[in-house]
Amino acid sequence: MRVTASAPAKVILFGEHFVVYGEPALVMAVERRAYVSTEPRADGKIYIRAENVGASGYYSGEGLRTFEAETGGAEAQRRLEPIKVVIEEARRLSGKNLGLNVTVESAIPVAAGLGSSAAVAVATAASAGRVLDLNPSREEIYRMAYEAEKVIHGTPSGIDPAISTYGGTLMYRRGEGVQPLALKVELPLVIGNTGLSRSTGDLVAGVRRLKEKYPSLVEPILKIGGKITAEAVKALETGNLEALGNLMNINHGLLSAVGVSSLPLERLVYAARMAGALGAKLTGAGGGGCMVALTEAGGLGKVARAIEEAGGEAFTATTAKEGVRIEEER
Amino acid sequence: MRVTASAPAKVILFGEHFVVYGEPALVMAVERRAYVSTEPRADGKIYIRAENVGASGYYSGEGLRTFEAETGGAEAQRRLEPIKVVIEEARRLSGKNLGLNVTVESAIPVAAGLGSSAAVAVATAASAGRVLDLNPSREEIYRMAYEAEKVIHGTPSGIDPAISTYGGTLMYRRGEGVQPLALKVELPLVIGNTGLSRSTGDLVAGVRRLKEKYPSLVEPILKIGGKITAEAVKALETGNLEALGNLMNINHGLLSAVGVSSLPLERLVYAARMAGALGAKLTGAGGGGCMVALTEAGGLGKVARAIEEAGGEAFTATTAKEGVRIEEER
Repeated sequence: MRVTASAPAKVILFGEHFVVYGEPALVMAVERRAYVSTEPRADGKIYIRAENVGASGYYSGEGLRTFEAETGGAEAQRRLEPIKVVIEEARRLSGKNLGLNVTVESAIPVAAGLGSSAAVAVATAASAGRVLDLNPSREEIYRMAYEAEKVIHGTPSGIDPAISTYGGTLMYRRGEGVQPLALKVELPLVIGNTGLSRSTGDLVAGVRRLKEKYPSLVEPILKIGGKITAEAVKALETGNLEALGNLMNINHGLLSAVGVSSLPLERLVYAARMAGALGAKLTGAGGGGCMVALTEAGGLGKVARAIEEAGGEAFTATTAKEGVRIEEER
Repeated sequence: MRVTASAPAKVILFGEHFVVYGEPALVMAVERRAYVSTEPRADGKIYIRAENVGASGYYSGEGLRTFEAETGGAEAQRRLEPIKVVIEEARRLSGKNLGLNVTVESAIPVAAGLGSSAAVAVATAASAGRVLDLNPSREEIYRMAYEAEKVIHGTPSGIDPAISTYGGTLMYRRGEGVQPLALKVELPLVIGNTGLSRSTGDLVAGVRRLKEKYPSLVEPILKIGGKITAEAVKALETGNLEALGNLMNINHGLLSAVGVSSLPLERLVYAARMAGALGAKLTGAGGGGCMVALTEAGGLGKVARAIEEAGGEAFTATTAKEGVRIEEER
């Protein structure tokens, strides 16, 4: 039995960083998927192959503590760890210590703020869960992937595995969980990738330091961020793309104010705006990673070309209405 | 009798745009000067020559309504108008309809947000005032230049002629006038000019439209801008350059949020920050014009070079402790 499951990437439309301090964020699943195939293997080992992070290797022994890299060298174990944690969790829940071959194929840029690792974790949970006869519900898949994220990241918001699991568009607020939003229109969105990876942890820590130094300035900036998300939900409900674009531009400036923009991001943001985008902002942790632009209907090509000419990699971001799903079973 | 007077340029350190809505701004006079020489001429005409705006010509007749361009073509009259208005005001106050030759020589970039036209107006008032035996006080010079600005710009804040007249560093709030600040240390500042001129009026109008559309977002941004200026005054008083730099970066992000930054400005801002500037922001109306960077002591050269390499024209901004002054009289 070989089961392939997939889960989509995500793009944060509003509220990154501010979400850490209890403000709401607006997140959309994007039709770029991570595919994970799982099949049993006879020797009891866990073999994981993830070409998107350039790593493969074998886990074996008591508690899968022995690791032998096949490709990826000294970095391989760290890169495969999130997948292995999901597999361990699935094996624990199923009570079966079955050996598995796990193959990851992902079209989602890595470390670019598009939730690549969460999508892989969610697809792994679905695929391994099926092979291990757990047949997990969406809620159970989400929990497995979230447990893995907790092991890796400490206290993640949980929004990445949520959007990869459920798809669509969600409003999220820490401590309150997710609220699905019904979109009337497909948003014409282009994502531009600077190709530069930065440490999310460092960027989050930088905002925290700034907030501790200048609470009377940064706290009201966070509050405005929350209001922007609320205004954006209204604009989505009425299909007011022009307002959404304006709100993205304001949000981008606030992210610049708290120190998480960069020249490579500004280049792509202004390239998009000058090519007629209704709005553009960095998305995710910032520093490098991606930006997202909202265009008029029919404006996608021109904005994507402008982003490419400014040195970015551009792709159209169609909403992934479906989250995690089983693609193939044989 | 030929009298030459000079007046310095200005740089807004904090609070541009937000000052329109009653928030405080922090402005410094910069040791780049406009020089204006005035001497009587026999034929009763007013001849003005201003090479910095590429215009010269003759005013004559009843109320000086007849204009004959010498250089600068159709644009000459509009460009010389502010100078002519000051001359008219000085003649009115003195009661003498003396003919004058007025020569402007200015090292201040034009339409770059550095207060070039106010510096010229202030130096004109001092120079012509002396030739016309008015011997105006600083307050009277300020008023003449301000009257000229009102004729040209409608309701200007009055901060540009104030800083050119008095020099030093001032806090300004609309309706409350100026408050001189005593700086303990010389600030190591570099100004970078994008070389692009934009319409101040259009940029101010754009902020107003955004505020009218999204009052619940833009009004708190203005308030934070005001708090930044207040924090900056504290940082100046304690000589805390690092805090000043942080405040400049936050201020820049808020200006980006209200839509007055641009890619050429961002290029110079990030070039300065990456070369070790403690902080950098656009200064003045934005769109194009200038940015200003605060460096560590000894960091001026490196930051200036980085700005030049990024395509800007850079110069060190030393505080002009003295405002308007008579340079020569013969």
